[in-house]
Amino acid sequence: MTEPEPAAAFSRTLLADPVALTAALCDIPSVSADERAIADAIEATLRAHAPHLELVRDGDAIVARTALGRAQRVVIAGHIDTVPINDNLPTRLEQGVLHGRGTVDMKGGCAVLLGLAVELDAPAYDVTWVFYDHEEVSSDLNGLGRLARTRPELLEADFAILGEPSNGTVEGGCNGTLRVELRTTGRRAHSARAWKGVNAIHALQPALATLATYEPATVEVDGLAYREGLNAVGVTGGVAGNVIPDAAVMEVNYRFAPDKSAAEAERLMRELFESESIAVVVTDAAAGARPGLDAPLAQHFLAAVGGTPAPKYGWTDVARFSELGIPAVNYGPGDPSLAHADDERVEVQQIVDCARGLRAWLAAG
Amino acid sequence: MTEPEPAAAFSRTLLADPVALTAALCDIPSVSADERAIADAIEATLRAHAPHLELVRDGDAIVARTALGRAQRVVIAGHIDTVPINDNLPTRLEQGVLHGRGTVDMKGGCAVLLGLAVELDAPAYDVTWVFYDHEEVSSDLNGLGRLARTRPELLEADFAILGEPSNGTVEGGCNGTLRVELRTTGRRAHSARAWKGVNAIHALQPALATLATYEPATVEVDGLAYREGLNAVGVTGGVAGNVIPDAAVMEVNYRFAPDKSAAEAERLMRELFESESIAVVVTDAAAGARPGLDAPLAQHFLAAVGGTPAPKYGWTDVARFSELGIPAVNYGPGDPSLAHADDERVEVQQIVDCARGLRAWLAAG
Repeated sequence: MTEPEPAAAFSRTLLADPVALTAALCDIPSVSADERAIADAIEATLRAHAPHLELVRDGDAIVARTALGRAQRVVIAGHIDTVPINDNLPTRLEQGVLHGRGTVDMKGGCAVLLGLAVELDAPAYDVTWVFYDHEEVSSDLNGLGRLARTRPELLEADFAILGEPSNGTVEGGCNGTLRVELRTTGRRAHSARAWKGVNAIHALQPALATLATYEPATVEVDGLAYREGLNAVGVTGGVAGNVIPDAAVMEVNYRFAPDKSAAEAERLMRELFESESIAVVVTDAAAGARPGLDAPLAQHFLAAVGGTPAPKYGWTDVARFSELGIPAVNYGPGDPSLAHADDERVEVQQIVDCARGLRAWLAAG
Repeated sequence: MTEPEPAAAFSRTLLADPVALTAALCDIPSVSADERAIADAIEATLRAHAPHLELVRDGDAIVARTALGRAQRVVIAGHIDTVPINDNLPTRLEQGVLHGRGTVDMKGGCAVLLGLAVELDAPAYDVTWVFYDHEEVSSDLNGLGRLARTRPELLEADFAILGEPSNGTVEGGCNGTLRVELRTTGRRAHSARAWKGVNAIHALQPALATLATYEPATVEVDGLAYREGLNAVGVTGGVAGNVIPDAAVMEVNYRFAPDKSAAEAERLMRELFESESIAVVVTDAAAGARPGLDAPLAQHFLAAVGGTPAPKYGWTDVARFSELGIPAVNYGPGDPSLAHADDERVEVQQIVDCARGLRAWLAAG
């Protein structure tokens, strides 16, 4: 047995090329719970090349902060874990498209962040760069959530940017998400004498009718239009092929606009579904985040990177900043609809453009 | 290693007491696929005490036939297996009630058959006694079905009685049973962008509405009223809590009166459920059996045992006789609603009465 080699720092040449750096980061596998190697590489790189940053390592999260005494501070964050690899590594670059796990979600963003963290030793705002673990798994494991709970002072800022894939446009805020179980109960009986039982699957009928005919709203919040969604995402019931079932459960996912709190979303679900025969049980709730695009820093940022801001539909960690009272947006390379796909891939020009946009803003202020 | 002991025959004293014999049969565990020991005991008993019977052993089924040259022959059959034991053996007799696995389904009936098989060496009709295996499991394993396929000549008869529990009344025929899967397909999408997908669970809505409002018919067949039933017995769908599901399946069980063939029942299911978005797949079909109470032997039998005949709702092996063109009824001790229950139990007077009823008919003709 020998001591493990200390992780090697990436070279300055590699750091200056965000596309090559994306490939290098992807080629270090880092499925959630297995982020040690990539975290070590990022930490070693910052220690080697970024003496202007104060480093904190927390588990497999790394927080790297400038301390320039600027009037305002921004957090720029990205997660370093991926969903499981499915024969889609190592990366390959073909005709301007980089293929492979993590290229979209979100090592392209991480490469942009890591390159700029090293390069910009005197940004116009103080910057807190955050690379964190466990984003792709259960929310209670999330590295950013852990920092918010245990080291909230590290995340203090006036504005936050999350490098999640957004096709290189600014996506403001995010929808909230609520999951409820609709539970019915009945009475078992042999299906040959069905009239002696009460069928719990049949009892789901009013709920399914509501879902099938529901017209989800589109809600304008701070100038962005958030499209909601209400869907059954699971259903289960049944004992055996000859038994009237005495229990059934339908799992419903409500994606709600950030004008509502999680409690308001829950109230709406109860109004829609709760009855004598259907119990509503909340299993998961996360409020959305208002876009926060009216904050002055957000306005500067928008002007620097250009483009038309759009709403973010999926729940992202911007909502954690929102909870801390920090306006936050998503801005990163990659098409979010390709995240987690087996053919995950990014147009490398988006990586280059995002790096240019962020650099322009941070350099000019 | 020593040779296994040959199975012991039951004594004549025990054979003359159908209640004690029921307890003795129950106390030989014989969950489906484990019928060897009880089949050996029954075979040994018949070899020892019933020289008037021709014996055929087929797997763990025993066929024992008189060969008296009577003008008519009846089959009297019972299965020797049980559903799994659940801490409900050995039997116990308390205040005229015998408790334990198999007391209802159907070792009470088997005890009546075995006692009379030994006792009646010159019945008014030729009798084929059948003790068979694997009734409580998948239909393709059923011992009576195996005999019907491989030794149909052994089952030739003018009338058949199945000793299934019927509270000591004659239950005629049985309902048929059809199982179909209603399958829907959709298109997966992240639930944050639900409008990009098609929800397969929602697509079950018309089928569930039909089921929840369906009024099952009651159909009179040969003077008996058969109550039908149409029920969802299972439902499953869903990929993950954040995915619009692309597939869902609802399993439906239709219990149909014996005026319909299985093909007619299937046609009705297709009329009710099949659509562009719902595929109907038959997974199991077994026609019912008309009561056959207009057969002369059935009339004699009814007169001898008394009582008012009733319809049988559950599918039983009488339908196998019906397929062979042999009118068949259920007649046995025990409340069928206690079959398979953990507190399975029989009033012993029903065992005594059934033995008396069958004996009276077979002795007098």
